[in-house]
Amino acid sequence: MVESNITTRAKDYAKWYQDVIAAAQLAEPAEVVRGCMVVRPHGWAVWEKIQAELDRRFKETGHQNAAFPLLIPLSFLQKEAQHATGFAMECAVVTHAGLKTVDGKIQLKGELEEPYVVRPTSETIIGHFFAKWIDSYRDLPLLINQWCNVMRWELRTRLFLRTGEFWWQEGHTAHASHEEAQEEVQRMLHIYRDVYENVLAIPVTLGAKTANERFAGAHETFCVEAMMQDGKALQGATSHDLGQNFGKAFNITFQNKSGQREFVWQTSWGASTRMIGALIMAHSDDNGLVLPPRVAPIHVAIVPIWKTDSERAAVVEAAHNLARDLRDDGLIVKVDDREELKPGAKYFEWERKGVPLRLELGPRDLAAGTALSKTRIGDKKEPLSLSALGSEVGRTLDTMQKALFERALAFRQSNTLEVDSWADFEAVFAGAGSKFVYAHWDGTTETELAIKEATKATIRCLPLEGHGPAPSSGRCIKTGKPSARRVLFSKNY
Amino acid sequence: MVESNITTRAKDYAKWYQDVIAAAQLAEPAEVVRGCMVVRPHGWAVWEKIQAELDRRFKETGHQNAAFPLLIPLSFLQKEAQHATGFAMECAVVTHAGLKTVDGKIQLKGELEEPYVVRPTSETIIGHFFAKWIDSYRDLPLLINQWCNVMRWELRTRLFLRTGEFWWQEGHTAHASHEEAQEEVQRMLHIYRDVYENVLAIPVTLGAKTANERFAGAHETFCVEAMMQDGKALQGATSHDLGQNFGKAFNITFQNKSGQREFVWQTSWGASTRMIGALIMAHSDDNGLVLPPRVAPIHVAIVPIWKTDSERAAVVEAAHNLARDLRDDGLIVKVDDREELKPGAKYFEWERKGVPLRLELGPRDLAAGTALSKTRIGDKKEPLSLSALGSEVGRTLDTMQKALFERALAFRQSNTLEVDSWADFEAVFAGAGSKFVYAHWDGTTETELAIKEATKATIRCLPLEGHGPAPSSGRCIKTGKPSARRVLFSKNY
Repeated sequence: MVESNITTRAKDYAKWYQDVIAAAQLAEPAEVVRGCMVVRPHGWAVWEKIQAELDRRFKETGHQNAAFPLLIPLSFLQKEAQHATGFAMECAVVTHAGLKTVDGKIQLKGELEEPYVVRPTSETIIGHFFAKWIDSYRDLPLLINQWCNVMRWELRTRLFLRTGEFWWQEGHTAHASHEEAQEEVQRMLHIYRDVYENVLAIPVTLGAKTANERFAGAHETFCVEAMMQDGKALQGATSHDLGQNFGKAFNITFQNKSGQREFVWQTSWGASTRMIGALIMAHSDDNGLVLPPRVAPIHVAIVPIWKTDSERAAVVEAAHNLARDLRDDGLIVKVDDREELKPGAKYFEWERKGVPLRLELGPRDLAAGTALSKTRIGDKKEPLSLSALGSEVGRTLDTMQKALFERALAFRQSNTLEVDSWADFEAVFAGAGSKFVYAHWDGTTETELAIKEATKATIRCLPLEGHGPAPSSGRCIKTGKPSARRVLFSKNY
Repeated sequence: MVESNITTRAKDYAKWYQDVIAAAQLAEPAEVVRGCMVVRPHGWAVWEKIQAELDRRFKETGHQNAAFPLLIPLSFLQKEAQHATGFAMECAVVTHAGLKTVDGKIQLKGELEEPYVVRPTSETIIGHFFAKWIDSYRDLPLLINQWCNVMRWELRTRLFLRTGEFWWQEGHTAHASHEEAQEEVQRMLHIYRDVYENVLAIPVTLGAKTANERFAGAHETFCVEAMMQDGKALQGATSHDLGQNFGKAFNITFQNKSGQREFVWQTSWGASTRMIGALIMAHSDDNGLVLPPRVAPIHVAIVPIWKTDSERAAVVEAAHNLARDLRDDGLIVKVDDREELKPGAKYFEWERKGVPLRLELGPRDLAAGTALSKTRIGDKKEPLSLSALGSEVGRTLDTMQKALFERALAFRQSNTLEVDSWADFEAVFAGAGSKFVYAHWDGTTETELAIKEATKATIRCLPLEGHGPAPSSGRCIKTGKPSARRVLFSKNY
């Protein structure tokens, strides 16, 4: 399938994002299913890489995976009041249990006494089962995670960032004390940070959400926020302290060591296929997708180059031998020996698919005992010695992984500032502009919304210690009222 | 949570099955969601093991994973006539896109112009996208797999075997010729066989389904059939030759090498969480779950035994050291150093959870440089030398894996027979009885249904060459009409 050209970021950032996805064949709108998408093999392979990295960390910290029903009784959503208003409105609703044919036409049958909603998130249904499973302090902590699809219909959709159906993991845990639950919330937040920074090569800012931006039903919500190349923030994952809200709504109690019954303290935390959107917007360029080696479904594309048939036989054989050696080192290697395409067309394709390293192997390279290498983000080609190819490739990929993180970090640093006047604040966010702005805020939802209304900038988080400037008192950027700290403002996805 | 005792197989086989699942905490009915189940952590961990084994084999044979929408437009189901009648009747139907609150009560809103069904299987929606992606013979074969949840509401449910929602993989491929598609159908059937026999330790019989038992919309359906301990068959996986049926329904065409447009030839193939049901019923005993080492989420449970505090310190430390060494060998090891439980209670628990090998480690064992080992299916305890524990444990687990397969194979052999008279046939299937019976059949659906009506036995498959007796002509067991071969009859799940 021929893909269209990629619009430049400078010309139309939103169009560029779509074009990168199409050119890399990551996903496409489902069209026939309102607001939904198909994740194509290359996109799903990236998600599998991310899943493996998260899943390993979840298990290392004692969590177990399980599977709960897709459908949730309507009444469950209503049990926690804030949760209901936050989620019920945009759910897919199942009202019938089947179909029948009448005069050759299909009709609904089996109307349900109580409709179900397709899960928008699973706090309620999991709360129901936690109440059955938890009896004593010995059953705690209960540390569960679920990998699944969820649905929240949205008016305006954008591949990976906002679609009706998406894929995610949702962790749900129950604890005997608030303190222990709070520790869990921070532990998982730092696992997300670890994966963002050390796997996706995207620096993130950790912090708490304002009351206005909190998860519906949570006592407190924490997040990791990443900067995209247009200066906007993307919320990368969230970790919620649910307090005893769901415990009380679903009557989840345990007998403590003194023999009394108490409500459990719960957390939930999630990250979704949105992470692929973050990857694209953090690293890709006008030539297409750029993937950090640690999430690349293909690490190395080897392109053999030939003119004659005898040359072809030699370079193709050598390419496959090299691939075998690299695979023994744990790398995923593609040998592109297609006959109908010229080398330039192959370079173009692997570049758009974000393969971190390309190796070109022609008769002269073979004679010289080298392969010409080019990283996805490098300007020039460099010869690598075939006799030490495994270690050379490993070193090159490690260097690229670090370089991507450093590049994204430098970009964020040069687009982050402290602002103390309303005029300057408005100027930063004028038009399509956005940066990370640390500014004082008077702590009220009213002011938060007024700032959003005026500039489209929102409070991304109240940064954790060490994220953002050290606490210092000042005056709210909008109202001039006293403020004890700066918070992070940005436009956002 | 205290689990009830396990009913014996002899007393009530169906109750025994439920009890094994409850005692091992594999799954439970969701109750609040019609016909659905929750797969608990221990059950999901088994599924993850099975997934990993299948997924590796799919990828080694060139398949790629992707994700398609959960919801399917109603009209899609109708495009392939047989498919519609086979699936549409038991679907969950989404009719509304949200909810609203009126006078404090939640009401439906956003009625959809065209309802969606929650996918019962994805041939139709995937066919739609194949039509977009396939243009030339160069795009073929297209080899896709999807891991997902599906829903088919059933009147009578049984954990893992038949539930409203279940989890599976569905492979969908498109090819340029019927021959190539037929090869794919057999390739995937043999991958299922490999996993059943070499991972789940369950021997299977491969064969073709009768027209009556074929997948709705398929040209031909192949299956693997396993014998459970009550002599009944369980269909373990299916692989379908779809011919050009969906190609024509969804207009999936390609330009062949001569420049003409042709419909593609398709296959689909699937295996589900039903495999866990097969595992349970093939191997477990009256003491609970038995898991072959290759699908066990925990290979070894080490139970330290002590009386005094100083003994405790020594054996617990030694147990953790052993666990570390075994983990270095790639084994999954649990050290059960809980203080509130006596060793006997721990043995009981790990036995019921199907852990293949238990190691007991007391002060005297430690002094003797041994640990007392007991496999889940062995009668006696044997000392293993601590100095060579890794290799001893590895050997023991390998032996157990083989022993389980041999035991299941011997059971099947001693419960398989050729039957040539209707009286004998009826006798085999009288009451609750079932075996694998190879008998002649006249090839008509009418006779097939009459036999089922009379005995509850169904034709499980027309065995492939090498599965079941060599072809020989004879007379139909029911009608006496001529028959060219014996087919496999059994009661089934």
